[in-house]
Amino acid sequence: MKNRIVALAGGVGGAKMADGLARAADPEDLTVIVNTGDDFEHLGLHICPDLDTVCYTLAGIANPETGWGLRDETWNAMASLVKLGGPDWFQLGDRDLGTHLQRTQLLKEGVPLSEITRRFCNVWGVRVEVLPMSDDPVSTWVLTETGELPFQEYFVHQRCEPRVSGFRIAGLESARPAPGVLERLEEAELIVICPSNPWVSIFPILEVPGIKKALGAVQAAGALILTVTPIIGGTAVKGPAAKMYTELGIRPSAFAVAAHYCRVLGAGRVAGFVLDEVDAAQAAQIQSLGIQTHISKTLMLSAEDRVRLAREILEFGKRIRRNRN
Amino acid sequence: MKNRIVALAGGVGGAKMADGLARAADPEDLTVIVNTGDDFEHLGLHICPDLDTVCYTLAGIANPETGWGLRDETWNAMASLVKLGGPDWFQLGDRDLGTHLQRTQLLKEGVPLSEITRRFCNVWGVRVEVLPMSDDPVSTWVLTETGELPFQEYFVHQRCEPRVSGFRIAGLESARPAPGVLERLEEAELIVICPSNPWVSIFPILEVPGIKKALGAVQAAGALILTVTPIIGGTAVKGPAAKMYTELGIRPSAFAVAAHYCRVLGAGRVAGFVLDEVDAAQAAQIQSLGIQTHISKTLMLSAEDRVRLAREILEFGKRIRRNRN
Repeated sequence: MKNRIVALAGGVGGAKMADGLARAADPEDLTVIVNTGDDFEHLGLHICPDLDTVCYTLAGIANPETGWGLRDETWNAMASLVKLGGPDWFQLGDRDLGTHLQRTQLLKEGVPLSEITRRFCNVWGVRVEVLPMSDDPVSTWVLTETGELPFQEYFVHQRCEPRVSGFRIAGLESARPAPGVLERLEEAELIVICPSNPWVSIFPILEVPGIKKALGAVQAAGALILTVTPIIGGTAVKGPAAKMYTELGIRPSAFAVAAHYCRVLGAGRVAGFVLDEVDAAQAAQIQSLGIQTHISKTLMLSAEDRVRLAREILEFGKRIRRNRN
Repeated sequence: MKNRIVALAGGVGGAKMADGLARAADPEDLTVIVNTGDDFEHLGLHICPDLDTVCYTLAGIANPETGWGLRDETWNAMASLVKLGGPDWFQLGDRDLGTHLQRTQLLKEGVPLSEITRRFCNVWGVRVEVLPMSDDPVSTWVLTETGELPFQEYFVHQRCEPRVSGFRIAGLESARPAPGVLERLEEAELIVICPSNPWVSIFPILEVPGIKKALGAVQAAGALILTVTPIIGGTAVKGPAAKMYTELGIRPSAFAVAAHYCRVLGAGRVAGFVLDEVDAAQAAQIQSLGIQTHISKTLMLSAEDRVRLAREILEFGKRIRRNRN
């Protein structure tokens, strides 16, 4: 019986959405496939910003103010490092450092990232299955007016300031989806593309060889692909998504995101799109792409918002199915 | 004018002695040459236990209870790491981790350990010159009944439990003294062998090619080599020195240490030996080795103890010189 929900997620927005889905559905039915294109080496540590944000959020140990990092965090290692001349542009909390140190060690010992994530989730009490998109190194590069930048260099160090002209996902030629990714997609009845950055959070996942094809196959076999807008009123809730659309010559909007996924996944693949009530006027335009729409309050400020939005998405999926039959 | 004091030091005992000398003399006149045979790689970090203990102590930021590590330390990274299955046998405080992360990074960038130490000491406000014995990797191995163990494995992980049959200092064939080491020895009027473990703290320093020869030359030219006992009443103040003597078939005593340095450095090299008042009866026996003695309270429990003992050592040196003339 296919009853699996698979969410594709990047960082903060994706993590909140995944958390809502885990609370609205049976967490055992949910698999979250997470972008690892943001992963990078820093101070000799292998850091997986999106994976950690998703896991920390699902574990209920994320910092509620920042959305990333751990709650009740201390910053003593960082303070000591910076005093000694170390880099201060990427914040690493003390507890968070424990995660990076142990993950880096296990990777050196040859344990795959997906297995490490499984072990860590067990310790953290995460009941949802969290899978990195790939165990192989895949890295997102941002093409800018000042040259090609590794994602974290663009995103954190240069605070998304350079003007973007495109993206390059490196490492794809030898990357395979992590164990379980294709299997979970095959078992899915519902695939939720979370309100994450379409360019740098979702695109790298879709580019991993085999994933887009699996999505197409499972969609053709009856699974629904639903998308939640990361753009509200022309701006991104968090991060540079809107800025990227603008710099690439596209007016940022819910419609632009819907059109984007139509282009990337192929016309007819996306069954439904959840847009914010402030963008209600764009519903008809999105429907003209052959995508059904649901209008909601998409901003997730509280845990209740996450669950409510997740319930609406699940309901939206059922409604689409009912209308089909 | 030769007026430099050079101290050879290992960890806690050496650090306290160096600190006393820095307070009793002009810190600008003091150079501490520190054992790096204990250095090891742990969790991908390059850790220099003795160097850090000496620097932290001289900076006045050492943990007064343990002797090693930093005061006002937190342990959140470690707690998080251990929860995730990481090793718990080597304690790494959060602030201390900042040191290891930045040092490891700089080493990877090709900055020599001596230069890193100089930079860190500047930040920490250490006015004494602290030199690692070598910038090259030299590592102390402990030969035991259960096989050859890297020093920290023996010392921390196995809590000095395996029976010792000898030592091996690896890497000597390609190791050179760190820049400044030979120059400072040449400028020395007084060389203090701190109350550190003769086998695993001082021996590795003396084995670095060139150091023993430089000591001999400067001694022959008039410098005094003074030694402070790490053995009081047949036991070591801290660490396995007494246990090592016993397992190697030598009754641990102040005399055994004096005889040890006579053997390692050559008869006549050591001018004076500071022994504890509880071992006063051994003074004549030590003098029979051609070594002058000074009897003192050698246990450094307080900062005042360190300074008092250091002043006595400086005075002891002057006394030996006066008696010569």
